[in-house]
Amino acid sequence: MFGVTILGNNSAVPAFDRHPTSQVLTMPNRKFLIDCGEGTQIQLINYKIRRSKISHIFISHLHGDHYFGLVGLLNSFALLGRYQDLHVVAPPALQQILQLQFAAADTQLSYPLHFHAIQQPGYLLTVGEVEVSCFKTDHRIECFGFVFREKKRPRRINPDAVKEHNIHYSWFENLQMGKDYTAPDGTLIKNEILTFEAPKGKTYAFCADTKYDESFIPDIKGADMIYHETTYLENFKDQAIKRFHSTSKQAAAIAKKAGVKKLLIGHFSSRYDELNEFEKEAREIFPNTELALEGVCYMLP
Amino acid sequence: MFGVTILGNNSAVPAFDRHPTSQVLTMPNRKFLIDCGEGTQIQLINYKIRRSKISHIFISHLHGDHYFGLVGLLNSFALLGRYQDLHVVAPPALQQILQLQFAAADTQLSYPLHFHAIQQPGYLLTVGEVEVSCFKTDHRIECFGFVFREKKRPRRINPDAVKEHNIHYSWFENLQMGKDYTAPDGTLIKNEILTFEAPKGKTYAFCADTKYDESFIPDIKGADMIYHETTYLENFKDQAIKRFHSTSKQAAAIAKKAGVKKLLIGHFSSRYDELNEFEKEAREIFPNTELALEGVCYMLP
Repeated sequence: MFGVTILGNNSAVPAFDRHPTSQVLTMPNRKFLIDCGEGTQIQLINYKIRRSKISHIFISHLHGDHYFGLVGLLNSFALLGRYQDLHVVAPPALQQILQLQFAAADTQLSYPLHFHAIQQPGYLLTVGEVEVSCFKTDHRIECFGFVFREKKRPRRINPDAVKEHNIHYSWFENLQMGKDYTAPDGTLIKNEILTFEAPKGKTYAFCADTKYDESFIPDIKGADMIYHETTYLENFKDQAIKRFHSTSKQAAAIAKKAGVKKLLIGHFSSRYDELNEFEKEAREIFPNTELALEGVCYMLP
Repeated sequence: MFGVTILGNNSAVPAFDRHPTSQVLTMPNRKFLIDCGEGTQIQLINYKIRRSKISHIFISHLHGDHYFGLVGLLNSFALLGRYQDLHVVAPPALQQILQLQFAAADTQLSYPLHFHAIQQPGYLLTVGEVEVSCFKTDHRIECFGFVFREKKRPRRINPDAVKEHNIHYSWFENLQMGKDYTAPDGTLIKNEILTFEAPKGKTYAFCADTKYDESFIPDIKGADMIYHETTYLENFKDQAIKRFHSTSKQAAAIAKKAGVKKLLIGHFSSRYDELNEFEKEAREIFPNTELALEGVCYMLP
């Protein structure tokens, strides 16, 4: 299972029962939170997402609609007696903001909180089988997109073949890593005979807030799914440029040029009640587009 | 009209669709916001409260469930193009927290924001006909309750009497202020003949978060309505003491000893789904008690 659940899909000001940006990335055995607008902790309750499973929180930039819910969530974790480590990966200035708020409330966290300040684009960290990197987007303030890439998974044991060659299970881990097997009589048995191809690792890219920007296409190239903001419809293209945001067609153009499999669009301006037009415009350029709707989990294809 | 609309009535962690503390005080021509937990801006939208009418925001203390929604509201005011002055009255440490967050986002507010740091208990400020003062409560960190007192209103003109004595309307303001009238022939006409008694100004007191504390009874004495927290039912009295909170019966005892007319109770712990027991326990001691329910406007009696 590798999917993205949308908690908020609206831009700056909440409207039409839509909330500011937040997404939960669900992978085997762990969850990441991406951005954390005001009210995220309530959305997590609404959609019954197990908060204790969240090990890492990634914050793209310090506009309020992407992080004002963070301190409340961290605080509630403590009040609920969380004990698991929590990692926050974010622009450096966030650390002092959090520290000041904890100090003012005399807050003692019940769990270890690790703050990772994003210093530059590139590799960030590896969590289990997932490697996370970031790239710069073109926004009014410094802003980072994130790429979550499952590393190659282990090859799968061929049960008939290992039985036929009488291989002890203590050797299976070596086989899964791709090693050939040498039998007691010296015969070499090629790994391809004993295992099946590893399932391909999947890649999700979160392109944060951004103007139309081809410079990060190499970072998201060939991803299974990307999220790209579409604050405006195409007829507000000028507004989009002025405000460092993108239109429906611009998001679709990036998805097409990057050769990704699927496009999720969100961060809709509060000027729009109806969202269907976003989907329609984007699909003209990139057919496999879906609206990021709150409460829905989108699986990577 | 002098009433209080509840936006949030829950303690620390949101639960059962209840939100953290926030209230709107509605008076003729103006609104004050008291505390501003996470999600307050969304509650203001839900209950269709005109945000532009809010001139002052009072923050009792810096536990997150009483102010984490403030920066988002201030931010949204700017995005919505507010131009009216806004006053925030709060513990001093809040100013730097706000400034850091505005700086990180490169936020330029569209309106003048005046920060009033609470230095000590006592008189705070006067807004139109309302005088606001504060008092200390007994909580884990420094915490203030607020008293909103309408000053004596102008006396009401007796239309028959002013007609009979042929008094020009340019003199009415003097009469409303209580002055006697001297006729052109030198006759003194007493003010009581020309006007009716002024309607009595009303008083509302918000007692914030607090342990049972009789020390602030003089501050709230005789108020028309007070809000007092009741985090726990009576059987959790020990827990209440330990956490610097109050029980249902303790809130009622304060209301009774202070001789107030009406008691509103809230800040219910997330351990309680059902709230009726709070009302029942409090009414045993102070019958004119009401649960502070979200979305309801409680008029001062």
